[in-house]
Amino acid sequence: MSRDDIAAVLERYARAVLEKDVGAFASLYHADVRVFDAWGHWTCDGLHAWRQMARAWFDSLGRERVAVSPENLSIEVSGELASVSGMLTYTALAPGGEPVRSMRNRLTWVLRERDGAWKVVHEHTSVPLDFETKAMLRDG
Amino acid sequence: MSRDDIAAVLERYARAVLEKDVGAFASLYHADVRVFDAWGHWTCDGLHAWRQMARAWFDSLGRERVAVSPENLSIEVSGELASVSGMLTYTALAPGGEPVRSMRNRLTWVLRERDGAWKVVHEHTSVPLDFETKAMLRDG
Repeated sequence: MSRDDIAAVLERYARAVLEKDVGAFASLYHADVRVFDAWGHWTCDGLHAWRQMARAWFDSLGRERVAVSPENLSIEVSGELASVSGMLTYTALAPGGEPVRSMRNRLTWVLRERDGAWKVVHEHTSVPLDFETKAMLRDG
Repeated sequence: MSRDDIAAVLERYARAVLEKDVGAFASLYHADVRVFDAWGHWTCDGLHAWRQMARAWFDSLGRERVAVSPENLSIEVSGELASVSGMLTYTALAPGGEPVRSMRNRLTWVLRERDGAWKVVHEHTSVPLDFETKAMLRDG
């Protein structure tokens, strides 16, 4: 798996989110994926639960869409395993395409090749916390 | 790298934290480590900065110590790359050894073998946020 392959998986992720395509979204993940999501749950184990999260997320958006843009990626590859870390900015777009609000997350993916396909076996997204207030740290 | 090897790295991590041993702590990480820490910063790039964080953390503890206990580990290994995900509970201990308070974090490590040594090249720890309040989610 090359850097271009990793970039391609991220592009497919961004397209699936923009199009609210649960099937395309789920196809990026292995059946036994474990997700440590930034929001709402300590862990989400298995694609069935993760797919339900995606459907609830996309349904909650109403007429808005979400554009995802990655930056500052760091990639490791060896054998059948790869990892990518970086920042993802999620920007909500009004029906006309204007940005409404945005949120930055830190992303870690671990990808594994099985049967010739590279898919995510572990995802960890988060926002850091301010130690004093225990609230989320502002972008900086 | 086997599951036992991963467990050994976690044991060395726990011992370094308990003993507030900055050198032993730093020896677990590659020079170019990238850390997405649960607290205070979006990213910490390079061992120099990460070592400074460890020193500040250990100094802040005063007479308390911190016991680390991992659970629910999931491990992937291939070639020169490995990943581990799981939960870490950090328990502050009074000088007499009694637990004072504890905090749970989600941990992702990516380890890479270089020159025969497995060290952490990427660490991501976090606490999930409640979507409504944007505050940290309680243990559950």
